[in-house]
Amino acid sequence: MAEGRLVIGTKRYSSWSLRGWLMVQLAGLAVEEQVIVLAGGGNTQAIRAISPNGLVPYLEHRGARIWESLAIAEYCAEIRPGLWPQEPAARAHARSIAAEMHAGFRALRMAMPMNLGRDFAGHGRTPECLADIARIEAIWAEALGQYGGPFLMGGDFGLVDAMYAPVVARFLTWKPAISPNAQAYCDAVRAHPLVDRWYREAAAEPAEWLLPKYENPVLG
Amino acid sequence: MAEGRLVIGTKRYSSWSLRGWLMVQLAGLAVEEQVIVLAGGGNTQAIRAISPNGLVPYLEHRGARIWESLAIAEYCAEIRPGLWPQEPAARAHARSIAAEMHAGFRALRMAMPMNLGRDFAGHGRTPECLADIARIEAIWAEALGQYGGPFLMGGDFGLVDAMYAPVVARFLTWKPAISPNAQAYCDAVRAHPLVDRWYREAAAEPAEWLLPKYENPVLG
Repeated sequence: MAEGRLVIGTKRYSSWSLRGWLMVQLAGLAVEEQVIVLAGGGNTQAIRAISPNGLVPYLEHRGARIWESLAIAEYCAEIRPGLWPQEPAARAHARSIAAEMHAGFRALRMAMPMNLGRDFAGHGRTPECLADIARIEAIWAEALGQYGGPFLMGGDFGLVDAMYAPVVARFLTWKPAISPNAQAYCDAVRAHPLVDRWYREAAAEPAEWLLPKYENPVLG
Repeated sequence: MAEGRLVIGTKRYSSWSLRGWLMVQLAGLAVEEQVIVLAGGGNTQAIRAISPNGLVPYLEHRGARIWESLAIAEYCAEIRPGLWPQEPAARAHARSIAAEMHAGFRALRMAMPMNLGRDFAGHGRTPECLADIARIEAIWAEALGQYGGPFLMGGDFGLVDAMYAPVVARFLTWKPAISPNAQAYCDAVRAHPLVDRWYREAAAEPAEWLLPKYENPVLG
């Protein structure tokens, strides 16, 4: 018996949906999944009719309405507190880098959009995008060094990894030059059973859902 | 005896600093305040030397290092849980609109930068900025209607109000056309003792800290 619904976009493209979906899976929420096929900019009429901010992911659970990935993260953490680190300073660290992802890295998002089915190796390397990638590598290096990996806060895939999973997906598609440690983290995320399941479900989406804008981008 | 420090920018201009400062005050953290005078884009060398993301506010408290306003909000809420609503659905609602502020309203931020000492009434009304303002009015109207005001989640000034306080400050300076209910909310925020203290401290900043970019903007 479903206790609500999670509304997401096309899995092949919707990086924010991947975040919310991973969080809801990690928390084990019994919600129905509702996919809205993305059109041009993502903010379609169908999404605006459902979600207060006009964006996915959007979660309804036991009467609560939650939008924005970080709010979904905190909601999931209240149900399964181990999704954030137990130690207060580590938890504050996790939330700092999750929030930095939530509000930042706009140049990366513009230059290297998520597309789980293509290989755009070598493209998209604008100076602003490379600056974003350098900061992401620094964030990862600090967390992996401090907590020992293979995930950002240590041994378990948690909410911070959910926030950075779409960055991993972008790196796997666009293949910017990154350090061996960053590559190892990307490989660990890609191999996680939930991430792998998302990739497989994305590959099974109908061909009519493909968008020329993302399949044939202007490659810089 | 200080238990850490809060690093902020010039109070007259630094909208993100206002958020973090209000949160830290609401939680009653015993931290020293360290002001870094903003230069051009805000991201100065002095800030980069201290803060991991190169931005203010930046908080150190009892060995924890916290950056990004939403992470500071959650840190403060762990110390004083009443800063988020007690009821789970209301708390999820509060976090949703706080996160929407954290990542959004870029057009408003570009067109109507915060300046606590000037009156730019009637300017800055780009179409994108007006769309942001319409969404903010909808957020406020829903919350004020649902919880009864005068603050967004009801009777107490909380973390969500801290997130929107700089929006209020922008509205008071740029005076876009807003509804009477939105204006009443702006007046309630402006009258809060902590907000009033920030305004007074901003007014007492030395004249050498004024930046031509913000004092004499190109007014559209």
